[in-house]
Amino acid sequence: MQKMNTIPVQIGSQIIGGNDFVVIAGPCSIESAPHFEQVSHAVKNSGAVVLRGGIFKLRTHPDSFQGMGFNAFEVVKTIKHKTQMPFISEVTDPRQITDLLDVVDAFQVGSRNMYNYDLLKELGKTSLPVMLKRGFSGLIKEWLLAADYIVRGGNEKVILCERGIRTFETATRNTFDLNAVAYLKQNCQFPVIADPSHATGASSLVTPMALAAAAAGADGIMVEVHPLPSQALSDGFQALNFTEFDQLMEKIKSLLPVLSKKMATSIGEL
Amino acid sequence: MQKMNTIPVQIGSQIIGGNDFVVIAGPCSIESAPHFEQVSHAVKNSGAVVLRGGIFKLRTHPDSFQGMGFNAFEVVKTIKHKTQMPFISEVTDPRQITDLLDVVDAFQVGSRNMYNYDLLKELGKTSLPVMLKRGFSGLIKEWLLAADYIVRGGNEKVILCERGIRTFETATRNTFDLNAVAYLKQNCQFPVIADPSHATGASSLVTPMALAAAAAGADGIMVEVHPLPSQALSDGFQALNFTEFDQLMEKIKSLLPVLSKKMATSIGEL
Amino acid sequence: MQKMNTIPVQIGSQIIGGNDFVVIAGPCSIESAPHFEQVSHAVKNSGAVVLRGGIFKLRTHPDSFQGMGFNAFEVVKTIKHKTQMPFISEVTDPRQITDLLDVVDAFQVGSRNMYNYDLLKELGKTSLPVMLKRGFSGLIKEWLLAADYIVRGGNEKVILCERGIRTFETATRNTFDLNAVAYLKQNCQFPVIADPSHATGASSLVTPMALAAAAAGADGIMVEVHPLPSQALSDGFQALNFTEFDQLMEKIKSLLPVLSKKMATSIGEL
Amino acid sequence: MQKMNTIPVQIGSQIIGGNDFVVIAGPCSIESAPHFEQVSHAVKNSGAVVLRGGIFKLRTHPDSFQGMGFNAFEVVKTIKHKTQMPFISEVTDPRQITDLLDVVDAFQVGSRNMYNYDLLKELGKTSLPVMLKRGFSGLIKEWLLAADYIVRGGNEKVILCERGIRTFETATRNTFDLNAVAYLKQNCQFPVIADPSHATGASSLVTPMALAAAAAGADGIMVEVHPLPSQALSDGFQALNFTEFDQLMEKIKSLLPVLSKKMATSIGEL
Repeated sequence: MQKMNTIPVQIGSQIIGGNDFVVIAGPCSIESAPHFEQVSHAVKNSGAVVLRGGIFKLRTHPDSFQGMGFNAFEVVKTIKHKTQMPFISEVTDPRQITDLLDVVDAFQVGSRNMYNYDLLKELGKTSLPVMLKRGFSGLIKEWLLAADYIVRGGNEKVILCERGIRTFETATRNTFDLNAVAYLKQNCQFPVIADPSHATGASSLVTPMALAAAAAGADGIMVEVHPLPSQALSDGFQALNFTEFDQLMEKIKSLLPVLSKKMATSIGEL
Repeated sequence: MQKMNTIPVQIGSQIIGGNDFVVIAGPCSIESAPHFEQVSHAVKNSGAVVLRGGIFKLRTHPDSFQGMGFNAFEVVKTIKHKTQMPFISEVTDPRQITDLLDVVDAFQVGSRNMYNYDLLKELGKTSLPVMLKRGFSGLIKEWLLAADYIVRGGNEKVILCERGIRTFETATRNTFDLNAVAYLKQNCQFPVIADPSHATGASSLVTPMALAAAAAGADGIMVEVHPLPSQALSDGFQALNFTEFDQLMEKIKSLLPVLSKKMATSIGEL
Repeated sequence: MQKMNTIPVQIGSQIIGGNDFVVIAGPCSIESAPHFEQVSHAVKNSGAVVLRGGIFKLRTHPDSFQGMGFNAFEVVKTIKHKTQMPFISEVTDPRQITDLLDVVDAFQVGSRNMYNYDLLKELGKTSLPVMLKRGFSGLIKEWLLAADYIVRGGNEKVILCERGIRTFETATRNTFDLNAVAYLKQNCQFPVIADPSHATGASSLVTPMALAAAAAGADGIMVEVHPLPSQALSDGFQALNFTEFDQLMEKIKSLLPVLSKKMATSIGEL
Repeated sequence: MQKMNTIPVQIGSQIIGGNDFVVIAGPCSIESAPHFEQVSHAVKNSGAVVLRGGIFKLRTHPDSFQGMGFNAFEVVKTIKHKTQMPFISEVTDPRQITDLLDVVDAFQVGSRNMYNYDLLKELGKTSLPVMLKRGFSGLIKEWLLAADYIVRGGNEKVILCERGIRTFETATRNTFDLNAVAYLKQNCQFPVIADPSHATGASSLVTPMALAAAAAGADGIMVEVHPLPSQALSDGFQALNFTEFDQLMEKIKSLLPVLSKKMATSIGEL
């Protein structure tokens, strides 16, 4: 039970993996300027300190909404300026890296790309943090080796994100492997974020499982929020509305002292 | 998100599934009279309210210790009298039921028997509570249908126990499916207990995952405790020693008020 | 690649695990005397040498047809006399063994009972062959240890039956693990039967996968046959009708010489 | 059981998905000019009609051999000229496509990249066939949607390759899902190749499982061959030596007529 110490990683001015619990929130996809602005202010008001929002989306079905792409760049810049919050978004292709450097404070590597070592090697050459999501069937051992591909490129700013694994169970979208969170906190030095939105695939389960993730030792959570989940262009079934997100934040805040932690607070002003 | 109300089940005088969080603890197997007495007093002193202890053990390897069997009966009776705690133990064969009625306050059906419908039907004819563990690869839907085999026999006192499922991951013994706990609390009326000992298979992970189970909404936990885990006749790698168990209880106690719950207390006196 | 030699097991006068490929066929459940008689003659005419038919059925849903039970006994005796074929049926409870001895030539232990060690121990005390199906998530290692529970009781007549395992894939009922068949032929001495009916859960896939099982080295197959699959009381979606079964037999017969085997022939006369 | 007709795809002059069974063979990685030449001549002599060989390797461990990269290009050109065989190799990054067009007759997309939709979209713009391997935990439904990403780009020349999926079983490297082969032959129009080397991860299982794949209906197999498997720079444990490969080819040849197929023959001369 010799616990390894976490080496914190900074996204913008926000420290991940220290004593403060970090909430990353935002929409699954950025759908429009007003949409992203509305969500960003709501999650900031409730206490989130890092913004998320999909620009280039990897969707299983070719007909599904694939993200705004470059059209989202100006939107993101405006909102970052207004909220003074750091921003994380998914990179899906090595050729996007240079462009994304213009708007992101951290790269997210999605589950579909955990084994995309060419992408990981390229991210190892950048100086921004990389949040590496676990593959659908990624062994913990493989996940750590994938992180190593980034580190060996010279970039030690890796954050791991548990987002559920694929099992025989179909009542939930994925099986949230919180054992992995507890295991990683004892056996590696990377900060660990948990994503209860993807891990459950059901908005009604996000709040209890966000609390469970915090109790298991996660350094923070990433949560999908939408003004009107039923109208979302992607994954609305797992998004919280503003009220639900605010209530989740209140519950987490009351839980953290029991774990000798407190909620990270944003430095910027609205 | 219409949550179903849990219908509490009573083991002895102890209510499971009410507002109080219940801790069931004891050794994996009852190894001898002094061993079981020592563990029982220790877990009671730390706040456990139901005793567990294997009498008839199902072990994958035929050479492994298979439990004390009938030799444990007098031991159990003595300890129950001394501690005034209700006792739960596993039943593995319909032909054991009549005998076990003499010593148990609740039957446990292990993972290997979730699909043993003949056993479940027989337990449906008894009046004691049945704690039904999830099969290694039991779908939630199948698990609820297995519970229905007991209920239809006339015995509605079913408690479900999540103890980890079998997946591709091998860093932990099982994958603890806490999504299932949150899901069941919203979608069925049975109390739900979580077993972090089997679900992790590693003593160092039991405490964080016990807290996570409570945060996910479990009505209680079942924990394996041993005076000297490295010497245990079965599953010592996942047992807590007395100090570790006591520390776990302190942490849970401080967590429960955040969840608007409190720790169940035993009525009996040492 | 040192292949272990298979030690043949005899069901009635039929040798399993020798040079002859054995086809076990019949309905999922025995539904009535005329139904079983019709199926038995059809499968015998096409070349099956062992009859199967469920008497005591384990069904996931308590409302599903649970088998004819003792009412099937006279039916079975009559058909066995008429066809002179040995008969195998599932045992689900140690208390059924004595009664079943009256009608079966071999016991089948279903997937739900691979871990039911009390049942396996009792079967170890009998002198009839036991066909042990693999559990839904049974590791090969666990499967062999389960077989060992029977052998240690004194009964070495164990036959293993691969019937598909539970994975993330849902397009087929189970994932047919033919690797396991090839592996077992090289690493243990028990005969290995494959069950393409349960392993696919789709009648259209039974024939190609029966051929694949033979090519992988199975000593025989077990196939579900029904006069009118769409009307079957259980599992009709995976049953072959008489014409399909006859065509399957023709294909297997032409395949076997390539594998230096031939089809087992029945000694009895219609 | 309405079977869909396969639309054949041509790799070089070789038709995949027609009435002839195609064997693709070669080393896991191209290790040197003499090594690749030796293997190529051996597999051609035994009857393989398409060459395989890794140039850019994706390896789980960053320290493992990552392939010869561009140094292999001249080697490949020389051998292709000498053997007159078409060549397939894995592409792992959209930026490799232009270069690889110089040496490959078909692209292979490995399991780690089944969900790499940016790569698939780029391959959709090329005119060469793409052999798309199934992801470690790729649902058949997702696999077909991944193929659709290529087709929608304008490239209909997709070949699917089943190479084993990830399950709880650890006795074999993967679980060979031959159900998927039979299912795809009935439900899609793409040719289907099976890879018994990766699907078993054990050279002793390659031959029986190659036969099983053919019997299940595969249009061909891809097999790893090495002059001295124990000395291979990657995956030697699953490679056949020349003698084993030759014996495998003889067995397949004798099996095919039973399936109303015959072995594809190469047009080129040594």
